[in-house]
Amino acid sequence: MTAKNAFYAQSGGVTAVINASACGVIEACRKHPDKIANVYAGRNGIIGALTEELIDTSQESDEAIAALKHTPSGAFGSCRYKLKSLEENQREYERLIEVFKTHNIGYFFYNGGGDSADTCYKVSQLSEKMGFPVQAIHVPKTVDNDLPITDNCPGFGSVAKYIAVSSLEASFDVRSMAATSTKVFVIEVMGRHAGWIAAAGGLIEDYGIPVVVLFPEVEFDQEKFLAAVKAKVEKFGYVTVVVSEGCHWPDGRFLAEQGTRDAFGHAQLGGAAPVVANMIKDNLGYKFHWAVADYLQRAARHLASKADVDQAYALGQAAVEKALEGKNSIMPTIVRESSSPYKWSIGEAPLSEVANVEKMMPTDFITDDGFGITDACKEYLYPLIQGEDYPPYDENGMPKYVTLKLAAVEKKLPAFEV
Amino acid sequence: MTAKNAFYAQSGGVTAVINASACGVIEACRKHPDKIANVYAGRNGIIGALTEELIDTSQESDEAIAALKHTPSGAFGSCRYKLKSLEENQREYERLIEVFKTHNIGYFFYNGGGDSADTCYKVSQLSEKMGFPVQAIHVPKTVDNDLPITDNCPGFGSVAKYIAVSSLEASFDVRSMAATSTKVFVIEVMGRHAGWIAAAGGLIEDYGIPVVVLFPEVEFDQEKFLAAVKAKVEKFGYVTVVVSEGCHWPDGRFLAEQGTRDAFGHAQLGGAAPVVANMIKDNLGYKFHWAVADYLQRAARHLASKADVDQAYALGQAAVEKALEGKNSIMPTIVRESSSPYKWSIGEAPLSEVANVEKMMPTDFITDDGFGITDACKEYLYPLIQGEDYPPYDENGMPKYVTLKLAAVEKKLPAFEV
Repeated sequence: MTAKNAFYAQSGGVTAVINASACGVIEACRKHPDKIANVYAGRNGIIGALTEELIDTSQESDEAIAALKHTPSGAFGSCRYKLKSLEENQREYERLIEVFKTHNIGYFFYNGGGDSADTCYKVSQLSEKMGFPVQAIHVPKTVDNDLPITDNCPGFGSVAKYIAVSSLEASFDVRSMAATSTKVFVIEVMGRHAGWIAAAGGLIEDYGIPVVVLFPEVEFDQEKFLAAVKAKVEKFGYVTVVVSEGCHWPDGRFLAEQGTRDAFGHAQLGGAAPVVANMIKDNLGYKFHWAVADYLQRAARHLASKADVDQAYALGQAAVEKALEGKNSIMPTIVRESSSPYKWSIGEAPLSEVANVEKMMPTDFITDDGFGITDACKEYLYPLIQGEDYPPYDENGMPKYVTLKLAAVEKKLPAFEV
Repeated sequence: MTAKNAFYAQSGGVTAVINASACGVIEACRKHPDKIANVYAGRNGIIGALTEELIDTSQESDEAIAALKHTPSGAFGSCRYKLKSLEENQREYERLIEVFKTHNIGYFFYNGGGDSADTCYKVSQLSEKMGFPVQAIHVPKTVDNDLPITDNCPGFGSVAKYIAVSSLEASFDVRSMAATSTKVFVIEVMGRHAGWIAAAGGLIEDYGIPVVVLFPEVEFDQEKFLAAVKAKVEKFGYVTVVVSEGCHWPDGRFLAEQGTRDAFGHAQLGGAAPVVANMIKDNLGYKFHWAVADYLQRAARHLASKADVDQAYALGQAAVEKALEGKNSIMPTIVRESSSPYKWSIGEAPLSEVANVEKMMPTDFITDDGFGITDACKEYLYPLIQGEDYPPYDENGMPKYVTLKLAAVEKKLPAFEV
């Protein structure tokens, strides 16, 4: 068999460990030069494939590729772009085939979440539907932890660790200050649809911290919430509130959209944390502080979970191995063998069952009052945040994150408008 | 000489390393049982001295005290409380003397920033003004880095490292997303009066990141600012904005107070980051993300600067040594011997010159356009963020931060109202 080239790209919101998957894919490909000649990375995800903006990864040294394992973000650029169906936009599929043919691409590795799995699934159909032989394997990635079948998703463990540790640290801070100053600390975390990240904040209860968690899965009830906050402050002197950005009122409005107006009367995009903090102040009079972690949480490679880094790398590697076994239209998954001690292995799932399916928190992971996590949830979460995997630091005291050369592969086709 | 007891307390906003100073004080005292019988810690700062709420640190094991070195926050509780002058409130000074006499306290170690140095200075005058022999030594601490004479303040180096690293990580993230999504990332940092922490965000320019810094020292000019943001986005495709919470308009209003109203018409406490982000969106149309680090930054012991931890510990230790040399009314300081390689030693400053003096950023640390830091500033900052000093982690993947027993010393005096 003549060696073909592989295409690899990153899609959707990036994470602290998506580059560890890139490292796994590229290192595995480099071990099989007889079967995979080169890895072309898409500049900005699938868009790079459509516009023929390919990056020649052979120009990157082994050291640079290895450094991806400890570098956050998407080294090749990501995109928010979903392929339409073949019926709706045949032009894009024809273009993909043209690019793949021109650059001798026989393997397609797409690294992303649910929407990206859909794109990967559609590419995996090119062979059957349009007669072009390409093997498409999806490499899972999402801080939202909402892909089905796999026990968990690379990216999530590191965010969970960051939120658990940061919430613990800030809670120690407010505990110190509570006698004469701040009594309530509110931290807003990501997760518009599923409360997995918020749940990680709930772990600090095991470390003696009074905490109230607001999940997107639980309709916001202001009266119950304020009562819960008051009870904790009266008992412990302080409380930490972890609020998901997806927390919403019974009518579906996000807390963050509470009709706030700026000086010009424009609707102001706020954030759930200041809304919650001001609500507590207005009703209970407690002095507060609030934080919105936003990108800090998903980019925090400095506090990555070792389990997460290992899995992200292993899934990238497994994607290549499975492709070389002749597989198409699948996603390698994490299978949990045991929680204590934590053991996991690599499985696989058909993309048809992965694309566009969101995995929510099981209802038995949230306590009956709706403000905390159960023992079952803790047993699920702790293994995912186990271990530390620090990046190297330079003499200035800054992490040594790699920026690749990103050398462009020469274009051979006419331009294409996305 | 008969051994006396020492009083130690923490004051003002806590930091990632104030407990390292506590560790330095207590470990140094434990080495001199012939001179210092016991360390009584004030529960919630000077308030604990006034209310006779003393914590018996001899009940804490050597291991627990050692663990303070890697535990953020104020283990004994802090306070925001400033002693009035002797003339204004003689009652409080008489009470202090009564408590010190009753508990045989001859050494007073106060760990805080500028306001706390004032309190410590007043206590140091008890000997001269009221005839009660007590030696008062101030242990510097403030993330604001605004104490005079000392080259830098414990607590600042770790915040600076956290903000520099977090801004770098989030910038890598936005760089990945910029082609089809977020082009501007705004991070709000602490520092109501001085831009030291914001300056640390400016370091990422050395790592290839286009960054605009908004200092409290520079009056906000919306037109110039928007032009700077636009220029960076047009050149690099994205930009990171580091905004100090103290950034303000020419008339003195903070950006965070821009007349935002909630649904009920109440003035809404916002945050400078969302104001800046929305301003960019409204005027330039760029998609944005924003974060407010708040307590996360000053509590982030997981990413402490080793230089900072070492200095916090050394200053606590030096305070005790200087007390045993018979000194009173001083603050041990950090003296910079050289920046490259970084060398420092311990000096001392009279409290009369420290109390109530704020050290601002030198004007030659800010670039002429007002949006960045100079080489002189970088040379000052890098040594302070050098080295990592990770806490130990438990088998769950969480840091092993210590919570002390905080055993109360038996009260012997009538109650006192603060």
